[in-house]
Amino acid sequence: MTSRADPPAADALNAGVIEAALPANAAGLVVAFSGGVDSTVLLHLAAQVERPVRAVHVHHGLHEQADHWAAHCRRTGERLGITVDTRTISIDRRGDGIEAAARADRYRVLGEALQADECLLTAHHADDQLETLLYRLLRGTGPAGLAGIQPAMPLGPGWLIRPLLAVSRAQLEAHARRHGLSWIDDPGNASLDHDRNYLRHRVIPAIEARWPRANAAAVRLATHAREQGRLTDRLLRDRRQCGSTAGDGPLAVTDCASGDDVLDRAMLRAWIRDGGQRPPGARRLAAGQAALVSAAQDRDPVLAWSAFAVRRHRGWLFRLPRPLPAVPTPSQVPPGRAREAWGDLGEVFWSPALAEPLWLRVPHAGERIALSGRRRGSIRELQRERGVPPWWRDRLPALVDEHDRCLAVAGLGTTRIGAERAGDATGIGLDFAPRPLANGPDWQRLFAPAA
Amino acid sequence: MTSRADPPAADALNAGVIEAALPANAAGLVVAFSGGVDSTVLLHLAAQVERPVRAVHVHHGLHEQADHWAAHCRRTGERLGITVDTRTISIDRRGDGIEAAARADRYRVLGEALQADECLLTAHHADDQLETLLYRLLRGTGPAGLAGIQPAMPLGPGWLIRPLLAVSRAQLEAHARRHGLSWIDDPGNASLDHDRNYLRHRVIPAIEARWPRANAAAVRLATHAREQGRLTDRLLRDRRQCGSTAGDGPLAVTDCASGDDVLDRAMLRAWIRDGGQRPPGARRLAAGQAALVSAAQDRDPVLAWSAFAVRRHRGWLFRLPRPLPAVPTPSQVPPGRAREAWGDLGEVFWSPALAEPLWLRVPHAGERIALSGRRRGSIRELQRERGVPPWWRDRLPALVDEHDRCLAVAGLGTTRIGAERAGDATGIGLDFAPRPLANGPDWQRLFAPAA
Repeated sequence: MTSRADPPAADALNAGVIEAALPANAAGLVVAFSGGVDSTVLLHLAAQVERPVRAVHVHHGLHEQADHWAAHCRRTGERLGITVDTRTISIDRRGDGIEAAARADRYRVLGEALQADECLLTAHHADDQLETLLYRLLRGTGPAGLAGIQPAMPLGPGWLIRPLLAVSRAQLEAHARRHGLSWIDDPGNASLDHDRNYLRHRVIPAIEARWPRANAAAVRLATHAREQGRLTDRLLRDRRQCGSTAGDGPLAVTDCASGDDVLDRAMLRAWIRDGGQRPPGARRLAAGQAALVSAAQDRDPVLAWSAFAVRRHRGWLFRLPRPLPAVPTPSQVPPGRAREAWGDLGEVFWSPALAEPLWLRVPHAGERIALSGRRRGSIRELQRERGVPPWWRDRLPALVDEHDRCLAVAGLGTTRIGAERAGDATGIGLDFAPRPLANGPDWQRLFAPAA
Repeated sequence: MTSRADPPAADALNAGVIEAALPANAAGLVVAFSGGVDSTVLLHLAAQVERPVRAVHVHHGLHEQADHWAAHCRRTGERLGITVDTRTISIDRRGDGIEAAARADRYRVLGEALQADECLLTAHHADDQLETLLYRLLRGTGPAGLAGIQPAMPLGPGWLIRPLLAVSRAQLEAHARRHGLSWIDDPGNASLDHDRNYLRHRVIPAIEARWPRANAAAVRLATHAREQGRLTDRLLRDRRQCGSTAGDGPLAVTDCASGDDVLDRAMLRAWIRDGGQRPPGARRLAAGQAALVSAAQDRDPVLAWSAFAVRRHRGWLFRLPRPLPAVPTPSQVPPGRAREAWGDLGEVFWSPALAEPLWLRVPHAGERIALSGRRRGSIRELQRERGVPPWWRDRLPALVDEHDRCLAVAGLGTTRIGAERAGDATGIGLDFAPRPLANGPDWQRLFAPAA
């Protein structure tokens, strides 16, 4: 087993450290180049990789030295034969709290510079990892936060890769001196917040004086924390019997009702995260889990936070957007058409097409229909029988004629009138394809899974 | 959800904090009392609990102040109406490395002072938790190490409980001053090693100046790390299909052969730990897992470390002692006996008893027997057919007569000669009860589980 915590010997620092960190389908490299010693070494190493390499310098708007830094970076690029693009962001304040926004801004700009499968390289190193772990520990973090700086993650159409994460700052500086590189001091630190600066200048030097290998220990811990997080997620995923064969649909309530609070909350949290959503905080999640699990059979409890909601229906939990999409207004369909948009919710298809004008609308309150071959009943009752969840009952489209007589209802089928109008017993075959919503992975499901 | 990280307000520090930390079946309390401010507050709080309370002071042998400290502790106890026993340990050196031994020594002495279901209380607090987490992080630890100081664990016949783990040092000192308690400075710190002292006096003050709530953050992180560790262990335990209904027997090789290295190693590690053993280090475990999983069908690969070994047999892994117990020498059985010790390995029982002297011995190399109702065959071959694992094949006892003719073999049954001698077709019913071994939970299994 090769551990990231055993950095290569100083003289072994070469382009191989970059190649080893790239994903299999990596295309060209884009170096995030501030002009400081770390990213200067990174650029120097990248220049030796046999792939297309370019660099991006983020120009920090109003900072008085920013033009000077940008010019230095262009010159360094010219010497190494690497094009350095400059992108400007404007940070007009300094102070705690602004740093997160500035960082997000930098990565947004850098991500926009990426093309498909290109890898953005940043020069984060082992001492940065130690700083990040300490910073999180002192301000408060959970085990997931100890994964620290990620060595590789998707970014825009490509990747964000940190190939120097196991290399110490001392090794980078030794490399820079050995190769006679020139750099500028601290361009990347100009936007560091006060806490980070305090940690870097007041706390870490005292630590390094006693524990010179603390950076390697931090790199190792972050790796193991990341592995444990992934392991737990996988075990939870394998354990749950989701409401779809792909294992990623609605969650059976029983899967988060074991009675072991830690397990039940972890299961709920992992399932929410697997749906691409950021779970609510610990208190709200705990209260929500209790409500979702223990509410009476005839209730439909909800766990709601930011733009999301988890709703229970028939022993299953659904991840839905919040608020729910608006109910479409009725829309007229010209004669001869056989498909139509249903507001923002999706598209309706039917056959046969009819030579008369039709309408799409939601069911009326208390509306009763006679489905082909069945006795007359209320749409609501028929939907309940079929397992249509409550949030779809007043949103599924009905196809009606000019006299507002119902020909077919999505999810229920053709009516007797629809069969007469179609001229055969099959009647109007009507399908509704709901549009997927990014913040509601289970929104598209029109029926509860079988029990 | 009540978080340990929200310590009670200073004026809320009362005996309730102890009661809340005790296990359900807790009997009396034994306070580990050094005389310092932390344990003085603990003793003061314990005196208000409605249970039998006594205290133990560990006298640090050769330290020049040790007699003075012990006398102070006895006087403090008298004032609070609590008996303070003094136990002496002798630490004859100072320095790094000796601290772990001294700590083990202290807990050994304190554990010996415990009676059934008594709770030893120590005064570890939130600032100790922060110190421990930092100490581990800087020296190198994995996610499990971040569980930090445990709030409750078994100790000897009772428990070790730290009821003040969510309380800050500042709160303890405020309580001591408010109640006019008197204490002595730093008796517990006399044996602190250099690293701990450095951390406490050079690093943590700089941290606390900037992050006064870092102690609470550490308490919260430790709680979550402990929960995540338990969660992962439970998920791994639930996932594996062990070779016994209790779920704690041999491990199916397929359970640690998913191809996901992190999962497979975690599974192997958790199963070893669940058997009461300390798993080998990461490198040896990884190499061992690979060998156990991928060795050819006809091999019996081994993962060996310290006093343990994991051996593969027929698609199952067994946790065994290392070295294996010695093979017993033959022993004579007086006429009329029907049970006999089999060396150190266990006991043999048979019926009927016979009125002639018999012998217990292991099978001879190449020995062939005729089991009742079957044709003659080699003992080794018969054992293989029955799934007797290799390490038992030359250790299972055979019962033989004075002429060394085999009457029965443990695990195989009676021979034709045994049936003749017993005078009925059932023959000699022979059972062997292997003695359990603390360092080999699967040692007792005489047969591989069914596939």
